[in-house]
Order: sequence, then structure tokens, then C-alpha cells
Amino acid sequence: MLGKCLENVRKSVPLVHNITNYVTVNDVANAILACGGSPIMSDEPEDVADITSICGGLNINIGTLNQRSIEGMFVAGKKAKELGHPVLLDPVGAGASVLRTNTANRIVSEIGPSVIRGNISEIKTLAAGTGTTKGVDADAADAVTEETLDSAVDFVKRFAKDTKSIVAVTGAIDLVTDGEKCYVIRNGRPEMGKITGTGCQLSGIMTAYIVANPDNMLEAAAAAVCVMGLAGEIGYSRMQEGEGNSSYRNRIIDAVYNMTAKELEEGAKYEIK
Amino acid sequence: MLGKCLENVRKSVPLVHNITNYVTVNDVANAILACGGSPIMSDEPEDVADITSICGGLNINIGTLNQRSIEGMFVAGKKAKELGHPVLLDPVGAGASVLRTNTANRIVSEIGPSVIRGNISEIKTLAAGTGTTKGVDADAADAVTEETLDSAVDFVKRFAKDTKSIVAVTGAIDLVTDGEKCYVIRNGRPEMGKITGTGCQLSGIMTAYIVANPDNMLEAAAAAVCVMGLAGEIGYSRMQEGEGNSSYRNRIIDAVYNMTAKELEEGAKYEIK
Amino acid sequence: MLGKCLENVRKSVPLVHNITNYVTVNDVANAILACGGSPIMSDEPEDVADITSICGGLNINIGTLNQRSIEGMFVAGKKAKELGHPVLLDPVGAGASVLRTNTANRIVSEIGPSVIRGNISEIKTLAAGTGTTKGVDADAADAVTEETLDSAVDFVKRFAKDTKSIVAVTGAIDLVTDGEKCYVIRNGRPEMGKITGTGCQLSGIMTAYIVANPDNMLEAAAAAVCVMGLAGEIGYSRMQEGEGNSSYRNRIIDAVYNMTAKELEEGAKYEIK
Repeated sequence: MLGKCLENVRKSVPLVHNITNYVTVNDVANAILACGGSPIMSDEPEDVADITSICGGLNINIGTLNQRSIEGMFVAGKKAKELGHPVLLDPVGAGASVLRTNTANRIVSEIGPSVIRGNISEIKTLAAGTGTTKGVDADAADAVTEETLDSAVDFVKRFAKDTKSIVAVTGAIDLVTDGEKCYVIRNGRPEMGKITGTGCQLSGIMTAYIVANPDNMLEAAAAAVCVMGLAGEIGYSRMQEGEGNSSYRNRIIDAVYNMTAKELEEGAKYEIK
Repeated sequence: MLGKCLENVRKSVPLVHNITNYVTVNDVANAILACGGSPIMSDEPEDVADITSICGGLNINIGTLNQRSIEGMFVAGKKAKELGHPVLLDPVGAGASVLRTNTANRIVSEIGPSVIRGNISEIKTLAAGTGTTKGVDADAADAVTEETLDSAVDFVKRFAKDTKSIVAVTGAIDLVTDGEKCYVIRNGRPEMGKITGTGCQLSGIMTAYIVANPDNMLEAAAAAVCVMGLAGEIGYSRMQEGEGNSSYRNRIIDAVYNMTAKELEEGAKYEIK
Repeated sequence: MLGKCLENVRKSVPLVHNITNYVTVNDVANAILACGGSPIMSDEPEDVADITSICGGLNINIGTLNQRSIEGMFVAGKKAKELGHPVLLDPVGAGASVLRTNTANRIVSEIGPSVIRGNISEIKTLAAGTGTTKGVDADAADAVTEETLDSAVDFVKRFAKDTKSIVAVTGAIDLVTDGEKCYVIRNGRPEMGKITGTGCQLSGIMTAYIVANPDNMLEAAAAAVCVMGLAGEIGYSRMQEGEGNSSYRNRIIDAVYNMTAKELEEGAKYEIK
């Protein structure tokens, strides 16, 4: 079934509108192309409604946000919702600044993304903002580990229900849930954290996946997480002597580019809780 | 003769001012360095006149345009024209949004670029705006193929005459014309479309080429197209097992870096119509 | 001792706030990660005070500056100083435009960076602005060579004293001084100049180094210069047939990633004047 999600992306070549940070934007574009989608970037308020209208979905990433791009996020987000396009929110740095926390919370409440993808700390910040948790939730661990897994799954399910969205929390163990069913995914490599933007790339790829699999968004989001994690494993296995994080970045995107449905089906490591 | 254009770039190290999108800007800078030029990026209206004054030419790329950078494009463009510097326009996404279409049309009419380089869809959009075509021109095919070649050449020549510029349309077959003579170029690989920004890189390289060959701009623009296409072929031939679009990107810029006049002369595949 | 500086970075994983240009920002982030630090980028005036507060130091790079990001530089710079965080200034293009020259001079006088890192031309521009030199200083050579070394060392020491900062001038020979002691460093490769942003990457790495070595900033800054230069040598030695500046960029960051204290101690080529 995950393999089917991959094939749907390659067949339909979903056009993804990205309002994303300038740090990792080039890798996001190449990652979307690698998985079979087609990226467009635009953040100017006067430009985004037209651009999002010709796309199939919208990826909002608040890293390096500014007042102009925030306005663009809301104009594009509202237009995308109006058109029935899926919207993904990557709340980069929510919790690290008031502006980021407030912007992410406003996007959740005013736009209502189909999918929210972040690390556990960002998701906890949003959960506090939406009332799922009060301040630091005792149930929500600081990292998703085998020991904290059950309470983390409960927490993420509750947040997904409260926001009526699919929530993907990525870390050593990844969780993807619609509030009922939770994929617990164990692909990936710790060395991926030494590359800037693997999370941003995943958000871009995930947007392409949910656009191409509109009737099966939960599984599509889980498939995207498996693709990225598996690409991290394949890329790592191909590292040559003397290579480091810069070459690893290329090798991961290359692995996304070459991944087949069969490879994904065989390499995906997940259980459902 | 194309080899001579290449040598002139390497000898004179033309300084190129780029107002370009933040998606592919790093690759544009490395591509300009690879071909023998030297890039400077600046888009702030208060900064661009000074920066363009110390350069030899200006590359305006409207991808990820915003109100501030649009103002920068006009300030820089007018200054460059005043100084007699060649200006290249890459109308990224013209036709995809009103802002992009209008901005590109205004740059054509108010600045008058020396060279316009885009894909057939962008060029058709501009042609409609300048009156060369009305709406969708029946003569202008949606893609330049062997079947539509003659009408495409006619269309591009007309647009070049109307705008008094050199026009480069890139795709499976590339066309470069000054309205009289049209280079029909068949270098390149379809896989280049799976890398973000090969078109943007070409615009950067082409600006370096026209700056370094002021008395021979048509041939210089054609040489730049051949360089990029041939680099795509050479880069592809060097791909290792497991590599994809991210490594391919590096291999193409590497091939531009190592290209010699002899290699270009022998590898360029073109006819003149 | 340089090796100790490297180990302190890897042990403490300094969080570095970067306000930097969009051309080379991805490489700066990966270079900071490669050396053992952790990067955050933010330039919005409303965001930067929060972000710099959670970091250990601030890297201000004025390439592609705009009115909004300039405001961000001052808000962040003042906050960082208030908190006692080290601030590094990379005055990209000072001397090339009035806006860049004025902005860099204002940062020197109003913020007072701990470290200023640039090429000789940028540093001479700042020296003129701060009164160290009048116009083109006869003592300050246009390039630091063996012939001009002594006068260049004198000039850089005077500028460091006048600005009460550590000054790093990079070029064929690199100079790092606090006004008393000057490291003269001969690592690196001329081919590094064919990659965009090796200077920007060095500024990012250097900020991580001074944050992690607060009691030994001069040596930390010199260590960062040696790391970058040595990585340029190691990366070059690993180049394969057909590779050029794009692969070289990856190989340099990879070499930073893999560098050990021992390798740095053995490979650093410097004398003290």
C-alpha cells in the first residue's frame, strides 16, 4: 500500500506550492522533484493566490518567516482551503520565538492545515497553544523513545483529534496519526540530523504525497516519512571514505530519486498503534 | 567560433549582477564561477544601482519576485541600460500569475533587455503581452519539436524582432535568435528537467557570455546554451550507480567548470535556420 | 591548542544565530553543522531578539542585505551584546556600494563586533570609515603576499586595536589578530575562490568556534581559519577526475565534518607575528 502511494506521486506529478525558508529551499525543490512531484516557490502576497491556484497543494514552512511572507502564508493558505487543496504546516522553530509560535498557532486555527509535521518540541508548543496541553504536558515526553512511546502516541492522537488534522512527529521514532490510527515508524539514521533541512525536505515530499493520494492521506503521509527515512539509510550505505554531511545530503536526495515502490515496501519499518 | 566565446569569458572574468530567486541562487553563483565569470547578488533598491555599476551586465530572474525586489529590478535595469550594460531577462513563471506576467512585460517594455531567455510557455506569454501574438498563438506550438520546429522558429524570430532583443527558448530543442538568424540547438538531456534551476543557471552563464562577447551577442548566447546542454550530457555520462538528481546537479556544474573551447566546438550540436 | 578549540566546539555544540545572505546560507548551515555547531537563521526584526537570546553567538553577514534585514541586524546585534554573546561581522561587499559600506561601518561603531572577518579590500574600506586609514592606505596592500606581509600585519593590528575587536583577513595568506598577536596562516587552496561562499562558511564556523572558546577567542578564530583552509586542502586531494567547483564545495564541507583535533594540529600551517 505504501508503494501504491509512491506510484501515485510518480504518475500524477503533483504541483506543490511552497512558502518555505531560504536556508533549505533548494533541497526542498530537488527533493520534491526526486520523489516525482513538481515544486513552485512564491511568498509575495500579491503572487501567492494565483500560484497556489494552479497547484495541487500548499506546503507552509515558517523557518525564516518575515512579515511579508507571513501575509503570503495566510493569503495562500486561505485560497488553497477555498479550492479544497491540502495544506501542510511545518512549524519550524515554534517555541523558539513568540513570532514563530503565534504564527504557527494562527495558521492552525485560521487555516486548518490537513497535515502538521514537526519535531516533538514544536508539536508540544502548538498543543499548548491549542489547549491540548497546558504548558509543558507531563504526558508528552521531550523525545519519542521506546520508553515514552505509548504516552507519546496518546498525546499525538489527541492533538490530531483536537486540530482535525493528520499529525506527523519526526525524530528517532516517527509518529503519523489521524487521531485514530498511528503509524510508528523506525526508518532513518541519526546522522540525518547533521544535515540542514531533512525535515523541510520531508515536508515538501509529504505535500506531494498527500496531493497525489487525496483519498488516503494518512497512509500517504506515513509513506513519505518512510521514503525519507529509508533514503537516509540507503544514502548512508553508499557513503564513500572521506564523505560527510554535504555528500550525505546529495546521496539522500539521490536515493529518493531512485526509490521504487518495491524498495519502499520492503524497506519500510513500521507498526500501527 | 563558439569556443572563442568561451575563451573570452575565461579571459575577461565578467562580473555579473544577479537579481534572482532564492531557490536556485547558489547554483547560479557556482555556475557563473564555473564558466569563468564572477557573480554578485543584490536586490535591495537602495543597493542595486551601485552594485550594477561595478558589474559588466545584469541578470534579472523573476522567480520568487516580491514588491521590494521588483523595485530593485527596475532601478538596476535602468541603471544598467544607462551604462550600456547588457541586461538578460529570465521571465520565470510568466503566465502563471498576473504579477509575474505584468512584471515581465513591464521589464520588456520599460527596460528593453538585450536577451530574453525562457521556456516556450513563458515566451508565448510575453509575446501575447507585446502584441506578437493574440492570446494563444496558433503558430506557436506548446513545445518545440521536430514537427513544430519551422513554425516555432518563425514565431521566435518575430518576437525577437518585435522586442529588438535576442530571444533564447529552451526545451527539448533550443532556439536562439536575433530575429534574422536562428540557432537550433540539440544538446542536453531530458533528465536535466528533474533538477531545479538548470534554466536559471543557464541565464547566469548566458549573461557572463554576452558581457564577455559584446560584439557577438547572438553567438555568445547560443554558445551558452550549448555549454549548458553539453555539460548536461557530460555530467550524465559520469553518473555513478545509485546517483540521482542531486548528484547530477553537481556533475553538470563540474562539467561547465572543466569545459574547454575544443570540447565545446566538438560537442555543440546545432544548425542555423 | 588549536585542536582543543575544535574539541570544545564538538563538545558544546554551540547554537549560532545567523543573519546571512540567501546565496550561500545553505552551505553556511551545513558548514556549522559539519564543524560541530548548530545553526539557526532568522532576519525578521520581530523575530531576531528571541532567536538570538536562545543562541550562544551571532553571525552577521551583509551579503544580499535589505532594509528589513539591516533592521534585524541591529536589533539582534544589540540584544546579543546586551546578553554578552560574541558577535561576528562579515562585511560582504563593503566598498562595493554605499549601503554596504555604511551598514558595515554602523555595525562596527554601534554594535562593536567581537570579530570582524573579511577580505583585505573589505577591511580596508572599514578601516577608512573608522579612521584607521584615510582613503586608500598606502600601507595596506591590495593583497596580502609575502612581499607586503609586514605592512599588512601592521595595518591589521592597528585596525584591531582601533575597533577593539579580533580581525581576520582572509586571502592567499590569512591574518588573525587581536592587535597584539597576529596569526599568519598559510592553509587553503586558490581553487576555493571558484566556489561561492567559502568565506561565508568560514564566518559561520568561526562564530561557532568563538562561542565554544570564550576565554580564548583569538586562538579560536585562528583555529577556524586553519580548519577551513585545511579542509580546502583535504577536499582538493580527494577530487576525482571530471569534478569541479560544485563537487569541491561538498568535499570541503565533508572534510570539515570529518576533521579531528589531531588532523588540525598536524595540518595547520601558521606562524605568529
